[in-house]
Amino acid sequence: MSKALLKTDNLQNFIDGEWVEKHESAPVINPANGKTIVDVPLSDEKDVSKAVEAAGKAQKEWALVPAPQRAEVLFKAGQMMKERKERLSQLLTMENGKVLEEARGEVQEGIDMAFYMAGEGRRLFGHTTPAELPNKFSMSQRAPVGVVGIITPWNFPIAIATWKSFPAIVAGNAVIWKPATETPIMAYELAKILEEAGLPKGIMNVVNGRGSAVGDAMVHHDDIRVISFTGSNETGRNIASECGKQLKKVSLEMGGKNAITVMDDADLNLAVEGIIWSAYGTSGQRCTAASRVIVHEDVKEKVEERLLVEIEKLAIGDGLDESNKVGPIINKAGLEKIEKYIQIGKEEGAKLMAGGYVLDDDKYAGGHYYAPTLFTDCTADMRISQEEIFGPVISLIPVKSFEEAIDVNNGVSFGLSSSIFTTDANRVFQAQRDLDTGIVYVNAGTTGAEIHLPFGGTKGTGNGHRDSGVQALDVFTEWKAVYIDYSGKLQRAQIDTE
Amino acid sequence: MSKALLKTDNLQNFIDGEWVEKHESAPVINPANGKTIVDVPLSDEKDVSKAVEAAGKAQKEWALVPAPQRAEVLFKAGQMMKERKERLSQLLTMENGKVLEEARGEVQEGIDMAFYMAGEGRRLFGHTTPAELPNKFSMSQRAPVGVVGIITPWNFPIAIATWKSFPAIVAGNAVIWKPATETPIMAYELAKILEEAGLPKGIMNVVNGRGSAVGDAMVHHDDIRVISFTGSNETGRNIASECGKQLKKVSLEMGGKNAITVMDDADLNLAVEGIIWSAYGTSGQRCTAASRVIVHEDVKEKVEERLLVEIEKLAIGDGLDESNKVGPIINKAGLEKIEKYIQIGKEEGAKLMAGGYVLDDDKYAGGHYYAPTLFTDCTADMRISQEEIFGPVISLIPVKSFEEAIDVNNGVSFGLSSSIFTTDANRVFQAQRDLDTGIVYVNAGTTGAEIHLPFGGTKGTGNGHRDSGVQALDVFTEWKAVYIDYSGKLQRAQIDTE
Amino acid sequence: MSKALLKTDNLQNFIDGEWVEKHESAPVINPANGKTIVDVPLSDEKDVSKAVEAAGKAQKEWALVPAPQRAEVLFKAGQMMKERKERLSQLLTMENGKVLEEARGEVQEGIDMAFYMAGEGRRLFGHTTPAELPNKFSMSQRAPVGVVGIITPWNFPIAIATWKSFPAIVAGNAVIWKPATETPIMAYELAKILEEAGLPKGIMNVVNGRGSAVGDAMVHHDDIRVISFTGSNETGRNIASECGKQLKKVSLEMGGKNAITVMDDADLNLAVEGIIWSAYGTSGQRCTAASRVIVHEDVKEKVEERLLVEIEKLAIGDGLDESNKVGPIINKAGLEKIEKYIQIGKEEGAKLMAGGYVLDDDKYAGGHYYAPTLFTDCTADMRISQEEIFGPVISLIPVKSFEEAIDVNNGVSFGLSSSIFTTDANRVFQAQRDLDTGIVYVNAGTTGAEIHLPFGGTKGTGNGHRDSGVQALDVFTEWKAVYIDYSGKLQRAQIDTE
Amino acid sequence: MSKALLKTDNLQNFIDGEWVEKHESAPVINPANGKTIVDVPLSDEKDVSKAVEAAGKAQKEWALVPAPQRAEVLFKAGQMMKERKERLSQLLTMENGKVLEEARGEVQEGIDMAFYMAGEGRRLFGHTTPAELPNKFSMSQRAPVGVVGIITPWNFPIAIATWKSFPAIVAGNAVIWKPATETPIMAYELAKILEEAGLPKGIMNVVNGRGSAVGDAMVHHDDIRVISFTGSNETGRNIASECGKQLKKVSLEMGGKNAITVMDDADLNLAVEGIIWSAYGTSGQRCTAASRVIVHEDVKEKVEERLLVEIEKLAIGDGLDESNKVGPIINKAGLEKIEKYIQIGKEEGAKLMAGGYVLDDDKYAGGHYYAPTLFTDCTADMRISQEEIFGPVISLIPVKSFEEAIDVNNGVSFGLSSSIFTTDANRVFQAQRDLDTGIVYVNAGTTGAEIHLPFGGTKGTGNGHRDSGVQALDVFTEWKAVYIDYSGKLQRAQIDTE
Repeated sequence: MSKALLKTDNLQNFIDGEWVEKHESAPVINPANGKTIVDVPLSDEKDVSKAVEAAGKAQKEWALVPAPQRAEVLFKAGQMMKERKERLSQLLTMENGKVLEEARGEVQEGIDMAFYMAGEGRRLFGHTTPAELPNKFSMSQRAPVGVVGIITPWNFPIAIATWKSFPAIVAGNAVIWKPATETPIMAYELAKILEEAGLPKGIMNVVNGRGSAVGDAMVHHDDIRVISFTGSNETGRNIASECGKQLKKVSLEMGGKNAITVMDDADLNLAVEGIIWSAYGTSGQRCTAASRVIVHEDVKEKVEERLLVEIEKLAIGDGLDESNKVGPIINKAGLEKIEKYIQIGKEEGAKLMAGGYVLDDDKYAGGHYYAPTLFTDCTADMRISQEEIFGPVISLIPVKSFEEAIDVNNGVSFGLSSSIFTTDANRVFQAQRDLDTGIVYVNAGTTGAEIHLPFGGTKGTGNGHRDSGVQALDVFTEWKAVYIDYSGKLQRAQIDTE
Repeated sequence: MSKALLKTDNLQNFIDGEWVEKHESAPVINPANGKTIVDVPLSDEKDVSKAVEAAGKAQKEWALVPAPQRAEVLFKAGQMMKERKERLSQLLTMENGKVLEEARGEVQEGIDMAFYMAGEGRRLFGHTTPAELPNKFSMSQRAPVGVVGIITPWNFPIAIATWKSFPAIVAGNAVIWKPATETPIMAYELAKILEEAGLPKGIMNVVNGRGSAVGDAMVHHDDIRVISFTGSNETGRNIASECGKQLKKVSLEMGGKNAITVMDDADLNLAVEGIIWSAYGTSGQRCTAASRVIVHEDVKEKVEERLLVEIEKLAIGDGLDESNKVGPIINKAGLEKIEKYIQIGKEEGAKLMAGGYVLDDDKYAGGHYYAPTLFTDCTADMRISQEEIFGPVISLIPVKSFEEAIDVNNGVSFGLSSSIFTTDANRVFQAQRDLDTGIVYVNAGTTGAEIHLPFGGTKGTGNGHRDSGVQALDVFTEWKAVYIDYSGKLQRAQIDTE
Repeated sequence: MSKALLKTDNLQNFIDGEWVEKHESAPVINPANGKTIVDVPLSDEKDVSKAVEAAGKAQKEWALVPAPQRAEVLFKAGQMMKERKERLSQLLTMENGKVLEEARGEVQEGIDMAFYMAGEGRRLFGHTTPAELPNKFSMSQRAPVGVVGIITPWNFPIAIATWKSFPAIVAGNAVIWKPATETPIMAYELAKILEEAGLPKGIMNVVNGRGSAVGDAMVHHDDIRVISFTGSNETGRNIASECGKQLKKVSLEMGGKNAITVMDDADLNLAVEGIIWSAYGTSGQRCTAASRVIVHEDVKEKVEERLLVEIEKLAIGDGLDESNKVGPIINKAGLEKIEKYIQIGKEEGAKLMAGGYVLDDDKYAGGHYYAPTLFTDCTADMRISQEEIFGPVISLIPVKSFEEAIDVNNGVSFGLSSSIFTTDANRVFQAQRDLDTGIVYVNAGTTGAEIHLPFGGTKGTGNGHRDSGVQALDVFTEWKAVYIDYSGKLQRAQIDTE
Repeated sequence: MSKALLKTDNLQNFIDGEWVEKHESAPVINPANGKTIVDVPLSDEKDVSKAVEAAGKAQKEWALVPAPQRAEVLFKAGQMMKERKERLSQLLTMENGKVLEEARGEVQEGIDMAFYMAGEGRRLFGHTTPAELPNKFSMSQRAPVGVVGIITPWNFPIAIATWKSFPAIVAGNAVIWKPATETPIMAYELAKILEEAGLPKGIMNVVNGRGSAVGDAMVHHDDIRVISFTGSNETGRNIASECGKQLKKVSLEMGGKNAITVMDDADLNLAVEGIIWSAYGTSGQRCTAASRVIVHEDVKEKVEERLLVEIEKLAIGDGLDESNKVGPIINKAGLEKIEKYIQIGKEEGAKLMAGGYVLDDDKYAGGHYYAPTLFTDCTADMRISQEEIFGPVISLIPVKSFEEAIDVNNGVSFGLSSSIFTTDANRVFQAQRDLDTGIVYVNAGTTGAEIHLPFGGTKGTGNGHRDSGVQALDVFTEWKAVYIDYSGKLQRAQIDTE
């Protein structure tokens, strides 16, 4: 079925408007069943160089195309994504594993982003503002940066790519995109769409391959002026350090250790529903997944009980089967990491209430599945309460008060998302102020960002930039302040003002 | 006179609201006459640690003070700076050397910044915006980052400090400030003012000392979450690299190789006036100084002639003497760097039309003065046309067309400021679009930024951030997206939208 | 041909999602040939009442639909308008007379507006901003107003309707629309599109008829909370007066007496091209049409000469014939008004250089055509230099200086659009500052507004509101300031701040 | 004491920078004791004409003063108001009657507004945004309107004046101000301050007198381009109608019938405190005063009880005596209106629980005092629940549900302010969305707006404009869209885009 859906058995790089034959490759494996879907190109520095050169030339023209016309391409792309939504979603489930319902949600996010960023074609607002001297005009404008590099992860293979490439494109940049080797199909499909939508050649270039080869070459290439990266903390730090040396702009988004707080006055059914969805959706492999649940001691038992009931109900299996609610883990390495942490949790004295094992029944053969896991009686400083596991694992931490909950929530090195369930109006407002993460939810889980608000986090999650929202434009544009003196005289700011 | 003006002979660090005795020190020397004015503390890592600890505690309270009340402190500080403007200006001339008129301009810039950023107390705008699901509320807000470090240069010892510290303060952060060892007096005076204006202890901490000790300790301190640096390119790269490793936000501003273009249709008198002011003001020691003049060949001779006439008129000497228009070079190292580049220019075959020597008459005894220098017949790729000299030196580059002028302007590794003189309406708009720098002037020199527009540059000048303007807030705040679901149901973005 | 294109021979009102049989009607006549195309309903107060009642109910639900979902309807409508562009353009030419190329431009404007206002679904920005008291939250939001009435003219039958209805709809209002009786076909087509795009019933209601019946009923209806009107000055004043009594919001756009200034340093070929297009396009029946040309005396003769040459070339006739560049006048009354003013101009002593007569050759039979007319040697205070003629008539006014040109431009009771042709950079900036109109063009004619900038004028042109741009939202939303105190205490603003 | 405080016994108009002798006058009476403080000029149409003429001339120059320099005058004025705060507050209490603490709050509001609008000098943001055609530049800017008229009420004699005049001034307009005849002292003091702060002559003109003479002349004067009015509904309608005829911009703020809703889950002590402050502060003579209390039936008795206890405690008397919490009614007419409504309330069957009578003990001799009054068991449609009484009178309306509370709150012809007390998080968000007023408070009374958020209301409260916040600028500026084509070609928007 897969090949029919994919319409090609030859995934290629897309450079300078051409589909380029690969020299080396690796198989793309469906995590639900271990079967190879297609091969992904493994590119090298030379491929990157070619792409950058093409992008550099193309960008100069693209920057001169009026932004409302640049935006037309995104409107068309959005329209095409909408028409192809079901097929894209199935392909996404095949390469990534997430269940179809979530895949559709992710594709929808890309569609929303297309229309949203297309809308920037007639906005891209800068300011006009009065100058302090007579007969002097001043304003600020957003200018494109040039060639930008984006490096995207396998867990949201199309949504995150749109977060990064669409603002870059509408702002007049050219893009070098390295998708994750696990999920090149979405990259292929998105590039196809942009090509068909009329994007000039060289503006979007897809160079598949490993981080150590392609990613590294991008980070070191002089003519790539921005790196926007979503991925692991360690890689992010290295990228930032290297980009720092080169004075390259860099935007990072590197996961979290997100907590849901359940207060004693919370709607517990709602809270548990939110936890299940946030913790086990995409098998916990979301950067915004809830991996900690901070529960007021007065409702701890009730929450545990209800969680167990709901965990029991979760159907696990191939995401293409709509009866399943939780899909596979991306690959063996992912599974092993989870197992390692389960072991650590046990050693740290956390109490395992559910899950804690690999699912290896016949029905899971070939795939990588892990049972939804619940640790309770965790302390805030256990490693399972501090480190990102990226699997369907909850560390439940009991607390005595709202203040303690806030402290525990904030007491990790990440700062992406947090959530609180409470019915108390005052606490809602304290919480949204005091929860020190880039995203805060009230009476909803830790996932569910909308594309028109800034996405990203504080502390170890990032370096201050944001994907999505109008803030995404800050990554891909330079502010230009323009002063025009029409007085016919030398006028000195701050000096000739009196 | 100096001591009377300074009102102390004991410059100290200001940590946690206390003036702290120094353990080591170095002399602060008036570049106009080589006399020691006072001693500057040379602090170490422990001083930084103490300051950060104090700042960390203080910041937690400060963040809870309503921003309009935080702003009151800046309004008061601005008022006090206004009242003390003349004294501050004289002290500034003494430690930095720039002529009094320019010193007054710089202090005025700080005053403007105080009032401007105070105005953010009742703004600090985020967005309310509709959510895509019913009974769901969404918004974005600016949150403070925590403890921030600022490292400022000697060439604008008070203005740049206000650009960095005032937005940080109004946004609810605490500041660790390392001023340049050459110019600690402005730091002392500004800290005094903030103290008297009622800033709570620990919010502004001044730790004097060398970059290798204090700066380095700041960059490596875990609890400093932002470094905002203005200074040399090399130091900036190192800071960015180290901050990258730590996922610290970092904002850099590192100079330029700014050009003024004079087209054949320009008002030549105006252009020459602009060149003289931009190239020789502050002895060329401004990051926005014009060090290249790109002249259309048809007016090249006229421009040269008039420049020579104007250079001849420039009175050079101690900036406290109001008859002088150009002051000293900051120190011997600065002088030697200039001399080195004059030698290079000669070797590269540039034609020296004026200056090119150290001023060492008796009247300059003790000081460091360099004659305003004009090289002509330079090519765009000479080192004197490419590298920052930071002295009163112009490389005049003849060109044949507007397009060539743009290419030459953009053909350097920096991107701070550029200027064009032309009377042609269409060229004005092409130029403001095509000049690839963060700041563009038309019919004015390369200096003269106003505090309410973004200040900073592209390429080797920075890493995408801006000082001043509302954009300065981006450095010192984190965007927080808040979603509040009041539906009483689990609603999934992108999925439950249909 | 027309009926095939129109797909119905029964134009009806569209009320509460139903196409409602008309009780009375009048013929819709093609101004190019005098033939009846279809009949337009002539409705009365009762029809308005029914529509308002339906709208009131529907709006309550619509306001609760998340704005991003409301926007989906506009995205779809925009897509459908794009697909139907050619057919819509031909219908537009048939009922309005403008040449096909211009009709396509107008339909494009509607398409652009659809996508632009759809983009507001995820914006509709209000502000979050800090409160002055601790534990107090504050923000502003845009709320819909309720049922709004829009009254649109025949000269831009679809573009202006989108300017007014699309922002109203995306912001959560319901609309009662009275199109001009001359051009009900565009209203029919647009309502069809919105219906097919899935707009809930009752949100868009089209009530055709005369201003004295339908318009009047709308203005007097208590439950219509906004009137947005484009049309004649006299009607506008009456509407504003009546709405004032009722405290109804009212937005007016009522034409202009727009001037193009040609300076002695202008590119004369370009200027003449701009004049021809601005003055004679749509036979001068645009509110932004240039009806005055202010020429520096030094280039007056040249401008006159070239104008005569270009006027000679203008092919006049049925706009459906693509070889024609100028179409008919809307109707006999329009023609008579023009003739009246030609007479006045002659009596005032203006010199008639071209045109000045009705075109009544056989080829124009049945239609209403007027020869492109040029008066020269006009003075600024002649009635033909002061009053809106709404026909292809230029009053050329010679001036001696830039300052005089500005004075003449500003010396009328209208303030919609103005234009200047000059190559002088300084004058460009003076002009854009000193020309006292809501729209200013430099080196382009008086027409050519883009939909994402505010459209409207000063003085007699309007009452301060703007169509199009984000400013259009101001007409159809109410600002709501929200303060939430979560301190648990009584806190008094301005009092408990110290 | 008063005269010493006032420093003059000759209040005059301030026209064209001159203090002008009055021809006619009326006494200004202290409502606390009936004593005459000073005389107020009663001006006529000629005075208005003189002021407008002066303003017209002055405005042309003022518009050319860079906005940051215009703002300097407001910064100085704010500083002076701060220094004179206590004296101004005492004078305010003398002429208006409100207790000193509230007077200080009002003066503080004026100070805040001065600094806030001064901050607009370096903002006054318009947009830069890309044009849809190549080599075309586009932007929007705020332009001043010209001469503006402001008409202010006696109940906030200085705060409202700053809301209207400061944005007008910073935006480059000149002002004709008609203060209420009851409170000319604040006008005198504010004009003095602006004069001393260096505002050029003719920019602020104070013309005292009656609405029927001065106000009417202002509304009819051709050269006043904006009327901003706060006052009665009837006058507002007439102004709007007349301004409509003249196409004058008009901004209205005309009171409310504001309700506080107390839900069954509310913090009742807090709610009662909020009610007392909102209903009886300034003796109920605030446009945002709470005159309705909507109480869930389950807590009705408790709320009534506690209200009675708190009413009992209210010390009433001369506001200059700091032990008093409630001051006098402005004048006899005000008192009579209140008495009339008490009678109506009784006849309508409302139950009078407290107050309901004039205070005429000896200690109130000469003054106009009314006992804080509480009606309960009111229905939503009683006249005392629908009409503005402008006195210390509460109509308590019991309801059965949240939904009913919202309906009752919205079921009046006004829409200024509303408040809800609830501890339920979900209700907070429903309420802020569904309460149909321009201002909404949660867990605070109906008063307490901050100057940086929009102030004004829906329905019968206004006509869509807002005082204060950045929205205030919309009243006093015109949007100007500027398009600059530098292509050297005729380019037609919407047509030449493909």
